[in-house]
Amino acid sequence: MINFEDAFTKVLENTKDFGEETVTLKNSVGRVLAETIYADRDFPPFNRSTKDGIALNYKSILEGKTELKIEGICSAGIPQQELKEDYNCLEIMTGAVLPKNADTIVMYEHVSITDGVVTINQIPKQGINIHAQGTDEKEGAVLLSPGILIDAAEVGVLATVGKSEVNVKKTPKITVISTGNELVPVEEKPLPHQIRKSNTLSIEAALYKEYIIPEQLHLADKKEEIKKSLSVALKNNDALLLSGGVSKGKYDFIPEVMEELGVEKVFHRVAQKPGKPFWFGIHKETETIIFSFPGNPVSTFANYHVYFLPWLKKSLGLPQDNLQVQLQEEIEAKPPLTKFVQVTTFLEKGLFCGKLINGNGSGDLTTLSRANGFVCLSPREDIYKIGELVPFIKVK
Amino acid sequence: MINFEDAFTKVLENTKDFGEETVTLKNSVGRVLAETIYADRDFPPFNRSTKDGIALNYKSILEGKTELKIEGICSAGIPQQELKEDYNCLEIMTGAVLPKNADTIVMYEHVSITDGVVTINQIPKQGINIHAQGTDEKEGAVLLSPGILIDAAEVGVLATVGKSEVNVKKTPKITVISTGNELVPVEEKPLPHQIRKSNTLSIEAALYKEYIIPEQLHLADKKEEIKKSLSVALKNNDALLLSGGVSKGKYDFIPEVMEELGVEKVFHRVAQKPGKPFWFGIHKETETIIFSFPGNPVSTFANYHVYFLPWLKKSLGLPQDNLQVQLQEEIEAKPPLTKFVQVTTFLEKGLFCGKLINGNGSGDLTTLSRANGFVCLSPREDIYKIGELVPFIKVK
Repeated sequence: MINFEDAFTKVLENTKDFGEETVTLKNSVGRVLAETIYADRDFPPFNRSTKDGIALNYKSILEGKTELKIEGICSAGIPQQELKEDYNCLEIMTGAVLPKNADTIVMYEHVSITDGVVTINQIPKQGINIHAQGTDEKEGAVLLSPGILIDAAEVGVLATVGKSEVNVKKTPKITVISTGNELVPVEEKPLPHQIRKSNTLSIEAALYKEYIIPEQLHLADKKEEIKKSLSVALKNNDALLLSGGVSKGKYDFIPEVMEELGVEKVFHRVAQKPGKPFWFGIHKETETIIFSFPGNPVSTFANYHVYFLPWLKKSLGLPQDNLQVQLQEEIEAKPPLTKFVQVTTFLEKGLFCGKLINGNGSGDLTTLSRANGFVCLSPREDIYKIGELVPFIKVK
Repeated sequence: MINFEDAFTKVLENTKDFGEETVTLKNSVGRVLAETIYADRDFPPFNRSTKDGIALNYKSILEGKTELKIEGICSAGIPQQELKEDYNCLEIMTGAVLPKNADTIVMYEHVSITDGVVTINQIPKQGINIHAQGTDEKEGAVLLSPGILIDAAEVGVLATVGKSEVNVKKTPKITVISTGNELVPVEEKPLPHQIRKSNTLSIEAALYKEYIIPEQLHLADKKEEIKKSLSVALKNNDALLLSGGVSKGKYDFIPEVMEELGVEKVFHRVAQKPGKPFWFGIHKETETIIFSFPGNPVSTFANYHVYFLPWLKKSLGLPQDNLQVQLQEEIEAKPPLTKFVQVTTFLEKGLFCGKLINGNGSGDLTTLSRANGFVCLSPREDIYKIGELVPFIKVK
């Protein structure tokens, strides 16, 4: 048995690079950017009007001329106009190009217009209401760097510079594998000694949130079948996520078959609760990583978030969360096991607090629905006190 | 002009119920549950072995018998067996049904086996290693209530009780509408006086995160076209999200057309920065809600998160976030405008902190990429001080 810190370190030592791919802008949300995004022109690309009003040459103001004849209209989307006479003006709309020979925009609220002549009622400062070319970004400037997660704001930036296709980090090819003869599909009515498959569906749902659509596989407790299926799965995936089949039972063929297929066991069993019988290995030949989680729902769920998600983030080049919450109750975590305890979190006067959820032990999935995450309590003789800050693993 | 609090209240007074629909379990992630989920049987549904080992009748232990003949094997997925002789035992696997006439399970680690006879090396407590029927949940118990957001843990619960299809709240039908003749599609190279469409793509990306796939529409600055398109859009949507077209320009036909189409203006212009020229209305006939955001990227983005998302959450029956962060710098928000300032947040000793991001004003989208959200600063004469807690609107 290995302790939690060592197990975690070993998992993170076995991350891998899944390469890159090009996706449409629309499909880039939630993906990790794999290229540098440059400004393809100045932003704004021209001296841009920020108000609806009139554009004038400031000479008029300096020389006390406050009644200006309107020469025409500059609307957004038409090429740059020119103010022909210094003491005239042009109407101008938000988003339009500042006309040549004009340098100031007065908003409609500060003028009155009669018979094609503008009267300026409030003297403007020179140069106002213009968003000058290149003041946000100069052509060639780096707007986004590789490694960031693309979210709505980044989609806006990518659209602005014409990236209808984006180079992103590939996500891993994953198969989620259920094991055990007692499992029946969700849509079936189980016999008294059977239960419905649920763990792997929960993991699949969690993977969707990472923009990964996994394959699914069920292994009955028959050694030759398991070997055949796993052999194929190892070839076709970056990672296998298994639930069940790694305890000491007669029909828990997985560790044995893995060994026969050339998978190197990195560790089996971690001094933690829940999730102790976790088996982690790597198939050197295909570089496929195997996360074989224990069969009970909370153990699988905890280990997915404790080990797999940090592995995924590191593999994609994303930073880890490293969150901490303040405990609201006392709790024990006597040696030798690291404890993962379900909590619900809330903000109280800016402080991120975690309140324990009383479940029925590691088997009860419904309590998970009330938790946002787990606090990670390293084993120690002293009780964890109210107000202590402890690491927090977010699950929702 | 209306103040921010009143505008926000009016938006939340105009939420609506989009009804319910049935989706597959797989598609239920991120949706709001619209039915009560009951336990369809006890959980566990039978006295379930939690270890691999041997099942015995505790009589053997009480009577000092520590060498027991193995009658057979109870594996997971087979019907309940029976221990025929009180002083024999059965091998049993994790997940299997406790056999009749047995009441205790001893793990393999605490026995040795030779020639079909088990020797018990460590005396067990009576009844251990059994997850008793119904101890997690009794048949008929409420497992999940309507109104919760379905996440990975809930998918596990739904699968457990056989919900291959789930009744959820419908999400609104939405069309995202871009306006302005200066806009060209992302894949086109803009002329010097043009810019690429980006705001609406950013909103669409944000909607994907809410599991909403919106329609898209572009309106050129031509009144009759706008009227025709909006008339159709009002009939086919629960909400329209517009970007641009609501300032005071000559070609900002939207407010006028809305009125002609029977849309009631709830308000136009809010005492806030950015996002002042926000227009909000309701079409009584179709009950379609119109969010018409100002055209600049940060304004649109801020108003989407400030108004639309809370409206969506309330419409779906979800609670609001009500987050607060601790300011890390001094900042002014003099009357009369409520200020939304971009911040990046972090946890420091459990405290949720917000650090201001220095942008180039409301027009610069690239600074948004560095922000997690906005702090909301109500207008006041006193400066906001370091350490003050202020409302926080999360954007990522």
